[in-house]
Amino acid sequence: MIYAGIDIGGMSIKIGLVNEDGKLLISKSILTESEKGYAIMTTNMANLIDELLQELNLSRNNLSGIGIGVPGTVDSKLQIVNSAANIGWRKLRIVDEFKKHFSCNIQVNNDANCACLGEYVFGGGKQYQNIVFVTLGTGVGGGIIIDGKLFEGYCSAGAEVGHLLLQIDGYPCACGRHGCWEQYASATALIRQTKAMMQANPLSKMHQIALKNEGVVDGQTAFRAADLGDEAGAEVVKNYIRFIAEGLISLCNLFHPQVFILGGGICNEKDKLTVPLQKHIDDYIKISGFDPAIKVTTAELGNKAGIIGASCLVMDKNA
Amino acid sequence: MIYAGIDIGGMSIKIGLVNEDGKLLISKSILTESEKGYAIMTTNMANLIDELLQELNLSRNNLSGIGIGVPGTVDSKLQIVNSAANIGWRKLRIVDEFKKHFSCNIQVNNDANCACLGEYVFGGGKQYQNIVFVTLGTGVGGGIIIDGKLFEGYCSAGAEVGHLLLQIDGYPCACGRHGCWEQYASATALIRQTKAMMQANPLSKMHQIALKNEGVVDGQTAFRAADLGDEAGAEVVKNYIRFIAEGLISLCNLFHPQVFILGGGICNEKDKLTVPLQKHIDDYIKISGFDPAIKVTTAELGNKAGIIGASCLVMDKNA
Repeated sequence: MIYAGIDIGGMSIKIGLVNEDGKLLISKSILTESEKGYAIMTTNMANLIDELLQELNLSRNNLSGIGIGVPGTVDSKLQIVNSAANIGWRKLRIVDEFKKHFSCNIQVNNDANCACLGEYVFGGGKQYQNIVFVTLGTGVGGGIIIDGKLFEGYCSAGAEVGHLLLQIDGYPCACGRHGCWEQYASATALIRQTKAMMQANPLSKMHQIALKNEGVVDGQTAFRAADLGDEAGAEVVKNYIRFIAEGLISLCNLFHPQVFILGGGICNEKDKLTVPLQKHIDDYIKISGFDPAIKVTTAELGNKAGIIGASCLVMDKNA
Repeated sequence: MIYAGIDIGGMSIKIGLVNEDGKLLISKSILTESEKGYAIMTTNMANLIDELLQELNLSRNNLSGIGIGVPGTVDSKLQIVNSAANIGWRKLRIVDEFKKHFSCNIQVNNDANCACLGEYVFGGGKQYQNIVFVTLGTGVGGGIIIDGKLFEGYCSAGAEVGHLLLQIDGYPCACGRHGCWEQYASATALIRQTKAMMQANPLSKMHQIALKNEGVVDGQTAFRAADLGDEAGAEVVKNYIRFIAEGLISLCNLFHPQVFILGGGICNEKDKLTVPLQKHIDDYIKISGFDPAIKVTTAELGNKAGIIGASCLVMDKNA
């Protein structure tokens, strides 16, 4: 069985062909070019799927389904993209558009849900049925698996984990309120926290690290400084991990999953992130008595999670 | 069909007989006397059920089921009371104990889940399938209905809505962390907030109101002062409602239910609570774009919710 997974981003669209074991057989990307409108975008995506099939000496007859991951809010029951501001889609039945090109099973969902599904079926969540997946990127997104099924809230409007409160009247968030978790735990927030600490500590090694990085402060700056024993860098890392932990603890109290899977570039820090986070969670569960334990781990599918996860939307095991 | 609902509290145990329409036919209460141990407690409860049946000229043969609501953590799948500190139960299979007395269907669950179920089946949640029920009492408890089913998290350890974070490093909570929602939105918190405002405002009408109440500051003190145009009282009420709203908004972003149902004594304030809360939620959903709207309402079953809700555990419609 061959499935196409489409991972739509603001700049580029990644498409791959995936087999029933979750193996990515081939993938390519094209520019998103959302200004051309959804019809032309769909034609371009359909052409790329054909191209990928041809390269594997396959045809549309071999294609069992197409899963589409969209950066926005998607009502998965009604299969409507409610809003995807980055690509200009609003109240769009993108599946109907694809059906003008293909007759196979086609499904659409939010990109974070797709990545979560990919981790559940083929990645770090394989052995669990209850998962909270959290991506620490520009914002904080996520997906939730309850008893083996994606949980999205009524009209797929829930599971917005980044908009849990961390601090009432705290840092302003794009959602309209102040103090959302993503304003403290996203990569964007980490960079802001790093810059603030650098300004207050002109002798910190973070300055040299940024200089060597063409002057750019990024999500690694504080971690690398901490590696070198820089106290200010270590302080940034410690506080940042604490911010992540506090949000995870709220999610623990609501969903109590078996595992937290963390995604996003920050996860390349691996143990430097998961070991202290695991300790925060373990300590809380021990003190509160809210058993059982919850494992903290990082995503396994990396930048393929979008494509593989989207393809999972149309695999029988998740239908 | 007749069902027994048991609502176990730290001081007293309320038991009632309920018909299939959720009508409470008769109810009585006994002292909890947890120091006597679960076996004697169970015998006392069984005797009271027999007494209630006799008063209605019924026998055990007429009893279709017994539902038990316990103030603690209950693994509803395994039917084990993991911990109910107030009554000294730990890892207790209370259903097995009841089966020594009765042969009908017997189920146990957490008391807040029972109240939530009661509101869902017979109260303020009748017309909805997705509900977040929040009790504002000594702490903040709750229950969650997703697609018509109680959601409890893995091993029933989730749905602890009171332990969402409101303020990192905020007021200390019994669960071990600082800043949990229940430290701001519970009746206990309201009383603390009222006392603090009274101390800062010796001329506030809250002092006279408390004096007339035998010197006791309670959850109504600030509301009654606000009714009389007292600015300090109105400020307490405004801030308290804001604290409730911020937690509801976090729950909105995670679960996006169709309705928030509020329980607990504070809900006697009715519109004074729900109208401003509805505005907070409406404003947020409008600004954030996280549709659709969510209704805010108060529980309808009042102090009968525990008994009626427990009886719902064993009604066919929820089996």
